[in-house]
Amino acid sequence: MTVLYKADPARGAIWAERFAEVAPDTPLRIWPDIGDPASIRYLVAWEPGDLVTTLPNLDVLFSVGAGVDQLDLARIPPHLPVVRMIEPGIVDGMVEYVTEAVLAIHRDLFDYAQQQQARVWRAMPLRPAASRRIGVLGLGMLGTAVLERLRLFGFACAGWNRSARTIDGVDCFAGRDALDAFLARTDVLVCLLPLTDATRGLLDAQLFAKLPAGASLVHVGRGPQLVAADLLDALQRDHLHSAVLDVTDPEPLPADHPLWTQPRVRITPHIASATRPESGADAVLDNLRRRRAGEPMIGEIDRARGY
Amino acid sequence: MTVLYKADPARGAIWAERFAEVAPDTPLRIWPDIGDPASIRYLVAWEPGDLVTTLPNLDVLFSVGAGVDQLDLARIPPHLPVVRMIEPGIVDGMVEYVTEAVLAIHRDLFDYAQQQQARVWRAMPLRPAASRRIGVLGLGMLGTAVLERLRLFGFACAGWNRSARTIDGVDCFAGRDALDAFLARTDVLVCLLPLTDATRGLLDAQLFAKLPAGASLVHVGRGPQLVAADLLDALQRDHLHSAVLDVTDPEPLPADHPLWTQPRVRITPHIASATRPESGADAVLDNLRRRRAGEPMIGEIDRARGY
Repeated sequence: MTVLYKADPARGAIWAERFAEVAPDTPLRIWPDIGDPASIRYLVAWEPGDLVTTLPNLDVLFSVGAGVDQLDLARIPPHLPVVRMIEPGIVDGMVEYVTEAVLAIHRDLFDYAQQQQARVWRAMPLRPAASRRIGVLGLGMLGTAVLERLRLFGFACAGWNRSARTIDGVDCFAGRDALDAFLARTDVLVCLLPLTDATRGLLDAQLFAKLPAGASLVHVGRGPQLVAADLLDALQRDHLHSAVLDVTDPEPLPADHPLWTQPRVRITPHIASATRPESGADAVLDNLRRRRAGEPMIGEIDRARGY
Repeated sequence: MTVLYKADPARGAIWAERFAEVAPDTPLRIWPDIGDPASIRYLVAWEPGDLVTTLPNLDVLFSVGAGVDQLDLARIPPHLPVVRMIEPGIVDGMVEYVTEAVLAIHRDLFDYAQQQQARVWRAMPLRPAASRRIGVLGLGMLGTAVLERLRLFGFACAGWNRSARTIDGVDCFAGRDALDAFLARTDVLVCLLPLTDATRGLLDAQLFAKLPAGASLVHVGRGPQLVAADLLDALQRDHLHSAVLDVTDPEPLPADHPLWTQPRVRITPHIASATRPESGADAVLDNLRRRRAGEPMIGEIDRARGY
């Protein structure tokens, strides 16, 4: 019944404290101190490496993060359930980050920052939130939570998802056929899609051309979804106004990459959201209980779909 | 029954459209086209100048903004009611601006901006909102609305007001005696006080010393409340971490002022919030109805208190 944790060790210490506090009967080991390999039933990891095949009694692989695209699913035995992290800390962080980014764009803070550099005091017209059209790509737990918060500010909110969703007060678009109509009405595009073969390179010149002139991008999905050269081109032609990028390809972004210095581009080092160790541990413990009771685990991925 | 508007003429055109649409029987004139001075009963102005004494039948002076500190109350006849602007557009703008500023501070965006300039990709620890203590000075309509929005993010919220207030989920402090305790528990201080003799120069070295080391300031009150030299000193000594300033003294801030270039200081040109012309017109029309019905007007100031 032992759980093995293989990810950031500083956070691992908080996982260990949490296990000791709320589940003293469930042993947690921090990699590489794995003890008897045969005792390990559950692996909580960012990059599990060979452990998915060398641990003889492994029953479930838990990703320590919200995504599973860091895993090479082809190398993971097909019978092994893979569970992504769904816990309130990830949601809170993402809601904070995206709300800030959308408000910064809405309130022209990129332009005011440029004015500050030039020591210029000049007010721009204040646009009501109701006339600012926000569009979120991906209506999973994160996209839904983000839209529910943005709605409170009175923004005109829409979302797009591969399959149909319904969110109160949000204009929901579904499927590839509806993507163009969704983009045409979107002033601030927020990408919260999982990385799959279908979303790799999705944020490219063709997609940007479908956004209205002056639109902005908030990218909090995965780096390889964005074609950086196409974004730079759209910004330089002033078709896009600004971009907030929390993910890049590769990560870390190399020091000589032109995105670092492009005006009206903000780069942050993949910090929009992270698993909160305390509630991450609680989420895994809850799934262990479900597994033992024969109930479906929360966040188990569809291996064929890839998320 | 004529209303005279004396403020930004581009916004005045929207006021005129709104009056024509919803109150066609109430004439609105845009200064300087005042027509017969004797017909003017109501003045909507930012700076009324001599009109408060030269219009023979003036019955009410409406400030076009949320504050009245731009008025020289000593020059306004004591019998003339002075009404400040209370309308949803001002509230929405302030909630947007302060929420963005608090989230930007909370999520270390000043530090990440400095890292971006140095092309450094380095994540900092993510602190839960519950451990970030927000404190709002001034619990009028704006301060209350700001706290109600910030609460939704899970911040530890408190407010201070001259007289006692109660806000759900907010730790409310009242009176000068409680100010030190309020400051001692505040990581992000938001100033939304009106400008009076009691608040002029309030944000000074003495007050900053009572904040915990590493605290930040969001100043959306009035410029003369802040002693800029004391803020610069507190930032340079790293006692304060950062500041978002929407108001300065004087305004515009002179091009050679050191605040423009201080690291981790954001300056915006008094744009946090502005009266939305449509709803501002509605608010004045509602007060005209109240005045005619003998009801108290919303926003009438206490001339002795000054707000």
